[in-house]
Amino acid sequence: MAFELHPRLAEDTISLGYTGLCDIRLMDDSTWPWLLLVPMREGVREIYQLSERDQVRLLRDSSALGKGLMELFGGHKLNVAALGNMVPQLHVHHIVRYEGDVGWPGPVWGVRAPVPYSPAGLDRRIEVLGELIEDMVQKGSD
Amino acid sequence: MAFELHPRLAEDTISLGYTGLCDIRLMDDSTWPWLLLVPMREGVREIYQLSERDQVRLLRDSSALGKGLMELFGGHKLNVAALGNMVPQLHVHHIVRYEGDVGWPGPVWGVRAPVPYSPAGLDRRIEVLGELIEDMVQKGSD
Repeated sequence: MAFELHPRLAEDTISLGYTGLCDIRLMDDSTWPWLLLVPMREGVREIYQLSERDQVRLLRDSSALGKGLMELFGGHKLNVAALGNMVPQLHVHHIVRYEGDVGWPGPVWGVRAPVPYSPAGLDRRIEVLGELIEDMVQKGSD
Repeated sequence: MAFELHPRLAEDTISLGYTGLCDIRLMDDSTWPWLLLVPMREGVREIYQLSERDQVRLLRDSSALGKGLMELFGGHKLNVAALGNMVPQLHVHHIVRYEGDVGWPGPVWGVRAPVPYSPAGLDRRIEVLGELIEDMVQKGSD
């Protein structure tokens, strides 16, 4: 069955590239550096529902993204989460947190309305992320 | 360096058993079926800081636990998360969610004060979890 992105994810996030498994998407909220990995497998809600091979690929993508984000943005703590209470299609949040950021030390969900990127802000963010995403795309297609 | 459990985790959770890598711990909050995996590696804050081998072991433990919990408790959605804003020692939450539960569809953290298990409630919960934990402990020592 062809993979179709959940409309809510399509609306709230921007695709930056694809690994062999995942759509790498930027949350359109400039409050925190916040990216999602969406495994392109139709009907999958939970990590354990992926094949074992895909689970390991997701893990590798997730670790590459998490490490890269923390190096780029110098955060205090990374938040990694697959919740999906509102959007059941499997997606894994990667959020860079700073001590004293909005919502710290609580989780980010529902803290406040998203602050969408300005066109220039989005360009800058995508540029900063460029090398990391490129690296993930190349490794992911091995 | 010997692994030492963070005092906050020691206080809030109860150990049910050990895989080759993880301490499997029950959150002492009867509001949701809520277990933690704590990789017993000193000084590790993020999943990507584990060795690749340990990352895959954590993934396997996490998928076994998540799948088992959803089968046992018939939840609507599993929440899996490594946050660590308050307790930086790496620990991965596994929480069974039901539509309309306390806090639904938001995340569980900070929703309300924990409701500790009664002694009898704790015995029952541990009994229900017994086979799953035993299975994880055996597979984890392979």
